[in-house]
Amino acid sequence: MESCATLPLSQLPYVYPSTLSSNKAYPFWPCKRRSSSQPTRLHCSKMFVPGFGEASPEAKAAQNLHNFFTFVAVKIVAAQLESYNHEAYEEPMEFLSRHSLNDGDKFCASMFRESSRHKNLALRIMEVRSAYCKNDFEWDNMKRLAFKMVTESNTRLMTEYVLETSHVGTEK
Amino acid sequence: MESCATLPLSQLPYVYPSTLSSNKAYPFWPCKRRSSSQPTRLHCSKMFVPGFGEASPEAKAAQNLHNFFTFVAVKIVAAQLESYNHEAYEEPMEFLSRHSLNDGDKFCASMFRESSRHKNLALRIMEVRSAYCKNDFEWDNMKRLAFKMVTESNTRLMTEYVLETSHVGTEK
Repeated sequence: MESCATLPLSQLPYVYPSTLSSNKAYPFWPCKRRSSSQPTRLHCSKMFVPGFGEASPEAKAAQNLHNFFTFVAVKIVAAQLESYNHEAYEEPMEFLSRHSLNDGDKFCASMFRESSRHKNLALRIMEVRSAYCKNDFEWDNMKRLAFKMVTESNTRLMTEYVLETSHVGTEK
Repeated sequence: MESCATLPLSQLPYVYPSTLSSNKAYPFWPCKRRSSSQPTRLHCSKMFVPGFGEASPEAKAAQNLHNFFTFVAVKIVAAQLESYNHEAYEEPMEFLSRHSLNDGDKFCASMFRESSRHKNLALRIMEVRSAYCKNDFEWDNMKRLAFKMVTESNTRLMTEYVLETSHVGTEK
């Protein structure tokens, strides 16, 4: 019971698969500077990020979060259904086993067209992902955690390397 | 020349693969409420998000962004090298072809231990990902795009469905 209450691994969304796959069209260099936020600023102080074509890294990250929010919404709705209507819960789980959640919009579009019950469920998932994105998700917390993560990871990687090489030196 | 100047598809990081893969240990229900930001607030008004165990959706999203920033940093450094030192550019590209970028920290740790030249390159990538995360990445822009995306996607999905069913109705 418990194992079927979790989303299968194959349902996890990928990061930026569709857009970055077209990288081949965009060589690293030469390429235009990022123009998403400051199109009129010719001498941008930001680092040049190649390979995103017309889009921006922010758009790719937002697209990825959009798929993640659909994944979270499916988990929220499934947990709600499981808690008060176990029979109704089986149906979306069966649908999940047949459809990938990599592309959240595609998943919702397919669910819309499955049956009238599935349509209502898709509407609910869409409503939940919107509410989750706009009200529940802690954006500042994510930013804080990412800042912390990059600092701690860099320190840890360097410390590990230093300890490793010092150890070798001591053994000599 | 151009095709080898792009990162191979296999180098794209996956979303939340390592942590969500342990979902089986966390049934949807019963489970504790999210406690990342408001541990003392017993009656949280937020929706219950199951399946993240001790972590939070924000931590998973931050971890994913962390890997994405490493990916972006590699692209930035590779583009810089290609523009002024094409010979030095070949080396990291060869390393990239042998190592996955799915886990940014693991990638940097391996690069650290490859050779002294690779070590310097890894240090530079780590510095760039930190600077990119803290200075260049437009967090508010990403949030704005994600808000826009969820609203527009939901509207589009519903409009498409209504148009589709109206069309069928007209044809009858």
